[in-house]
Amino acid sequence: MQSITTYRAQFEEELLQRVVPFWERHSPDLEQGGYFTCLLRDGQVYDTDKFVWLQARQVWTFSMLYNRLGQEQRWLDLALHGAHFLERNGRNEQGQWYFALQRDGQPLVQPYNIFSDCFAAMAFGQLYLATSVDRYADIARAAFEGILARQANPKGIYNKRVPGTRPLKGFSLPMILCNLCLELEPLLDQALVERTIDECIRTVMEDFYSPESGLVLENITPDGQLSDTFEGRLLNPGHALEAMWFVMDLGQRRGDAALIRTATDRALFMLDYGWDQEQGGLFYFMDRLGHPPQQLEWDQKLWWVHLEAMEACLKGYLHTGDERCADWFERLHEYAWPRFSDPRYGEWFGYLKRDGSPLHTAKGGKWKGCFHVPRALFHCWEAMGQIMEKQA
Amino acid sequence: MQSITTYRAQFEEELLQRVVPFWERHSPDLEQGGYFTCLLRDGQVYDTDKFVWLQARQVWTFSMLYNRLGQEQRWLDLALHGAHFLERNGRNEQGQWYFALQRDGQPLVQPYNIFSDCFAAMAFGQLYLATSVDRYADIARAAFEGILARQANPKGIYNKRVPGTRPLKGFSLPMILCNLCLELEPLLDQALVERTIDECIRTVMEDFYSPESGLVLENITPDGQLSDTFEGRLLNPGHALEAMWFVMDLGQRRGDAALIRTATDRALFMLDYGWDQEQGGLFYFMDRLGHPPQQLEWDQKLWWVHLEAMEACLKGYLHTGDERCADWFERLHEYAWPRFSDPRYGEWFGYLKRDGSPLHTAKGGKWKGCFHVPRALFHCWEAMGQIMEKQA
Repeated sequence: MQSITTYRAQFEEELLQRVVPFWERHSPDLEQGGYFTCLLRDGQVYDTDKFVWLQARQVWTFSMLYNRLGQEQRWLDLALHGAHFLERNGRNEQGQWYFALQRDGQPLVQPYNIFSDCFAAMAFGQLYLATSVDRYADIARAAFEGILARQANPKGIYNKRVPGTRPLKGFSLPMILCNLCLELEPLLDQALVERTIDECIRTVMEDFYSPESGLVLENITPDGQLSDTFEGRLLNPGHALEAMWFVMDLGQRRGDAALIRTATDRALFMLDYGWDQEQGGLFYFMDRLGHPPQQLEWDQKLWWVHLEAMEACLKGYLHTGDERCADWFERLHEYAWPRFSDPRYGEWFGYLKRDGSPLHTAKGGKWKGCFHVPRALFHCWEAMGQIMEKQA
Repeated sequence: MQSITTYRAQFEEELLQRVVPFWERHSPDLEQGGYFTCLLRDGQVYDTDKFVWLQARQVWTFSMLYNRLGQEQRWLDLALHGAHFLERNGRNEQGQWYFALQRDGQPLVQPYNIFSDCFAAMAFGQLYLATSVDRYADIARAAFEGILARQANPKGIYNKRVPGTRPLKGFSLPMILCNLCLELEPLLDQALVERTIDECIRTVMEDFYSPESGLVLENITPDGQLSDTFEGRLLNPGHALEAMWFVMDLGQRRGDAALIRTATDRALFMLDYGWDQEQGGLFYFMDRLGHPPQQLEWDQKLWWVHLEAMEACLKGYLHTGDERCADWFERLHEYAWPRFSDPRYGEWFGYLKRDGSPLHTAKGGKWKGCFHVPRALFHCWEAMGQIMEKQA
């Protein structure tokens, strides 16, 4: 076992030497604005489409690094580079955020996906903290209010489900709101923040939890029951683990040790449940009754799942001291680092097959950009610092 | 190498002993009508949703077997069992076919997918040939007319692409029309059939063919150019191979030997291109510039791809006598039969990983029902009979 000092130095070096520089070097589109995110192993651009999730997440990442790690002007400049592009091109006339833009900013895919709005809110919220430019706070607040207003039917007219036959509630939006309300806390009315936190904790920790099985669910009936359908059987261990560290953050914010303890226990349970006993790593999707999921990629091992899991373990360990968290962190690290990290060109590979070999070696695409790797490396590095302080 | 007689006996036995009985035994929902298609390896039902593609395809299959292989009353009864369910529950008020229904027939997913209408047209067209009930011909014709009317924007209000930015034409609909116009020929006005055939041949063989690369494309610009985008780079070898035997059928219908020769050459090219040189089998998706496709399942080996490929080879061999078709048939057979066929419980497995091992062992799901296996086994058996006659 490595010492925590060694781990921490490794995370810091990875973040600052091999991850942040990869995006600084290869992603800016200096001609037409915004970022390229479809990058091959060595950073070469293979597609120029601009996905709003990833544009916004990169604005958030560089703003956050500037705010939290060090006020490097080049990080702020890079955040502003993406923000200008998004501000100019990202929204339709109703202020909803498109899903995808062409290289030149022309909209390609309509605002059917509310997570574009979530990541835009995060991006402009962090950028406001970095710049104190009121306009950025306004953009973030407008996005947040739009999300709350669209909660009942986030896909709007693009919702293909027939109303009434089988209404299901999804985990993703309440889960992300757990994080978003802390991200935007400095910009929002305090009563709204407290109300949103209450609601988020109740939804994520009660509604989407099955006490009989111990599982964190992805879809439930409106009255909180299990649904024996493809959606209702679906599990996403990475999602659940990410949500549990969001909840630990809420617990810390409220000084609620019991909430943190519960979130830690559920994270440990989902780690056990989601781990591939045969070939190692965490599955992407599972079916709680063991049936074949619709997602043909269900047995693949994804970069973000393992990073979110490491972060949940470190935060759980920081707050509870539970040694099982430390053990799981080591097991995850031992699996993930040699398989996902790419010391040669920087950044992490995204997609491994079940056996841990790469499905492809690209560093970015439609769903992978500059977000999970730097965020988790930074948060883990930060948590390790706090653990060391506590131990000292 | 096995003799053609041996192959033919194997296909017949598989169809009649292990494939058709699997669906006869396990799929009828005797309580609420229609068919179960989410079936585990041994036929056990693991989900009760009813997907219109698969309901309609099964009506087609049993009607077709009744019309072409033998007038078994139980096959017609089973086709009617599904047709009644579809007729009662399948359409919205505008006569468009839903994508998915609940077990009891309540609509679950809106008619966003025009292939529901295509398979409904096929189903009721074959059923009309079996029964001479005019109502079934009317349903088939109405579906066909609806498809032609919706050709310009098949997804209708569910289309998430912003109009104008990047209009692309897709291969799937013109491709399926090649087959559909022959299927429905007995029901349609002859001038409309000839016009549709002309249009289909032109679109599939000219517009979606790239002479420089020899590839059959999935998406092109409105003026028939290559598009360097995820959609424009996408290849689907199984699609291309299926389309080539559709075109061979059109060539036969018109007595156009040159068209059949061209379709055979293109099928042979796509077989070479789509074959996994390292681990065998045909890839599901590819990128024509070798970049990572968006589809994480791109390297999997799917049952229908290999069946369509075998059918294209046998039809190419029947019409041209090109020995490369016979060689490819054998290679495909040698790969597919031991991996997909399940002598123990019948039907074929659907999804193999790149290395040829099963991703899961279910026999049906959201996209796999009673269609590709029986159709291809029957067509191959039929083509082998014609080859034997020719050789005699």
